Amino acid sequence: MFVTPQSMRFEAPLSLQSGASIRDYTLAYETYGTLNPERSNAVLICHALNASHHVAGSYEGQPRSEGWWDNMIGPGKPVDTDHFFVIGINNLGSCFGSTGPMHANPETGRIYGADFPVVTVEDWVDAQALLLDALGIERLAAVMGGSLGGMQALSWTLRHPERVAHAVVIASAPNLNAENIAFNEVARRAIVTDPDFHGGHFYEHGTVPGRGLRIARMIGHITYLSDDVMNEKFGRQLREGIDLKYSTQDIEFQIESYLRYQGDKFSEYFDANTYLLITRALDYFDPARAFEGNLARALAVASAKFLLVSFSTDWRFSPARSREIVRALLENRRDVSYAEIDAPHGHDAFLLDDARYLNVVRAYFERISLGLARSPA
Amino acid sequence: MFVTPQSMRFEAPLSLQSGASIRDYTLAYETYGTLNPERSNAVLICHALNASHHVAGSYEGQPRSEGWWDNMIGPGKPVDTDHFFVIGINNLGSCFGSTGPMHANPETGRIYGADFPVVTVEDWVDAQALLLDALGIERLAAVMGGSLGGMQALSWTLRHPERVAHAVVIASAPNLNAENIAFNEVARRAIVTDPDFHGGHFYEHGTVPGRGLRIARMIGHITYLSDDVMNEKFGRQLREGIDLKYSTQDIEFQIESYLRYQGDKFSEYFDANTYLLITRALDYFDPARAFEGNLARALAVASAKFLLVSFSTDWRFSPARSREIVRALLENRRDVSYAEIDAPHGHDAFLLDDARYLNVVRAYFERISLGLARSPA
Repeated sequence: MFVTPQSMRFEAPLSLQSGASIRDYTLAYETYGTLNPERSNAVLICHALNASHHVAGSYEGQPRSEGWWDNMIGPGKPVDTDHFFVIGINNLGSCFGSTGPMHANPETGRIYGADFPVVTVEDWVDAQALLLDALGIERLAAVMGGSLGGMQALSWTLRHPERVAHAVVIASAPNLNAENIAFNEVARRAIVTDPDFHGGHFYEHGTVPGRGLRIARMIGHITYLSDDVMNEKFGRQLREGIDLKYSTQDIEFQIESYLRYQGDKFSEYFDANTYLLITRALDYFDPARAFEGNLARALAVASAKFLLVSFSTDWRFSPARSREIVRALLENRRDVSYAEIDAPHGHDAFLLDDARYLNVVRAYFERISLGLARSPA
Repeated sequence: MFVTPQSMRFEAPLSLQSGASIRDYTLAYETYGTLNPERSNAVLICHALNASHHVAGSYEGQPRSEGWWDNMIGPGKPVDTDHFFVIGINNLGSCFGSTGPMHANPETGRIYGADFPVVTVEDWVDAQALLLDALGIERLAAVMGGSLGGMQALSWTLRHPERVAHAVVIASAPNLNAENIAFNEVARRAIVTDPDFHGGHFYEHGTVPGRGLRIARMIGHITYLSDDVMNEKFGRQLREGIDLKYSTQDIEFQIESYLRYQGDKFSEYFDANTYLLITRALDYFDPARAFEGNLARALAVASAKFLLVSFSTDWRFSPARSREIVRALLENRRDVSYAEIDAPHGHDAFLLDDARYLNVVRAYFERISLGLARSPA
């Protein structure tokens, strides 16, 4: 499936949770499949930290350019684009085509840098809703995401309950716990204290805070993987032969080599200010906050049907966190399906091929598809 | 109990595991209690990453100068200095008085810096043994340590089995797993890539790689604490009032404030090269390595009696890792006591006051004490 990225410009100001607003911004997006005449088969996919609107398919003439959820979405796949019209949108503040810190602030003509407004999950949802308006989509057959994308899916059911028939929330949580925030904060400090960060205005200095980005990514990778899979994939294997080098700076173990490689790669394509913004959006997400921490009350407004999926070895967003959402929905007598997949891959599992996981999602979307066939809009 | 640090110089070269050697080095140490005429009541305490020879007591005229294990060791305490002669030694390469990277290399007259030889747990044990020789102590009533200190205690039973009657190994592991190494590697990269590190020769540049040390310490702290205790102590509490600031760089949550404070404090007193050396010693420790990974075969040479203690919420060195040691010792039909303490504090628990934990250690040392009284040397 070959796809072409598109973009849409929005001139009117968007009011943000922080009280600030942003105007003259662009959202990059892609669509897969065909919108039916009733406009009832649209599925919005929300992305997590380092992903983008390029969810599925690939770019013509670019080998290995498959979207980040290409195993999940496409013709005949669990989210079947022969039946559904799927939309991926790059979030505001990201660095893959939508307006972000590396673009010019229309108010000043200067590159935003660290002055890009702080955006939240709720702001992203509102911006996504405007794009759907422009595409003529009033109501989503489903909104779906993993991790931070799952938070957006959950938020959709709260901010625009009448516009969502189903929400699929995978490997997610109702908010970050202290440990999650702590890892984000260390990553942010690594970036912000990199001398090449220049207070977030490194673009005009011609630098990139690559040291900080590398450290941030290495920390991230540790938390994406389970202890089990790390021990199985790397264990205590040495990179070269069997002799120790006895060095504090050279690579000795395979796991070191893997992490350095991931850090290097990431620092070449990801924007440092975007990293700060997105980790902060994660920190801030907490729908129960306005209800004195009572998640059931926070979710009372949701009218969608839900599928939640978690993975047994995910210690970043553990099954216990998904169960909190399930419990709060059940307290509101909502229609909830929940699958806890016994998978060894940690948080990363939501992106990987696990037949049980993919089949759960496939079955759920088949049910949505049947519902569409039965009840025209 | 007021104490006075001492030090001893060693001129003869010490051969290290790496093949290198070090000469003209000094070890800082402290002792508590009195060596009995039979010289049979000596207990060696081995320290972990950021601790020192100052294990117990305090320095006269210096309020709040208690040693790092002062709740465990002293008159009437679980390791009772009314009965035992306790010795704390600062490890080679550390930064609290023993020879380390901040001292001059006698071969060149230059500050060692990054040229300080890589030292291992086994090297530390050998250096400790030389100091005990000089103190006239042939055999230890016990060797004891937590975390990396526990690794040294275990190593003592393998390198000098005839010199150890009892080994007390707390919150430790037979080696680091991939995730442990990964966290160490991120911390090291943060230090090494700090522009103020200058390839490990920052002393002559008049700089300190404080950014890297801060990041290293923040990562460390996250892994010392359990999820539970973090949620209980900090949760999602904001530092100031109830209003969000919507900032990526300001402190918003209490946990951020705590981590930054810990990082700042650490960067003011800890040496960056020492951090590299000690994390590497952790990475390298693996007595089973010479036995194709068979821990039982590696421990066959040990003749000491053992007490092992682990803590239920310690995810850095989990109870499962202690049980590996227990199992390997039992396969060798060694005398092993094992206590798994259900404590909420994570890895940090080994330093804290938990009555059950302190009582287990107290009972074990009372048993050792009785044995000493019954059988004169």
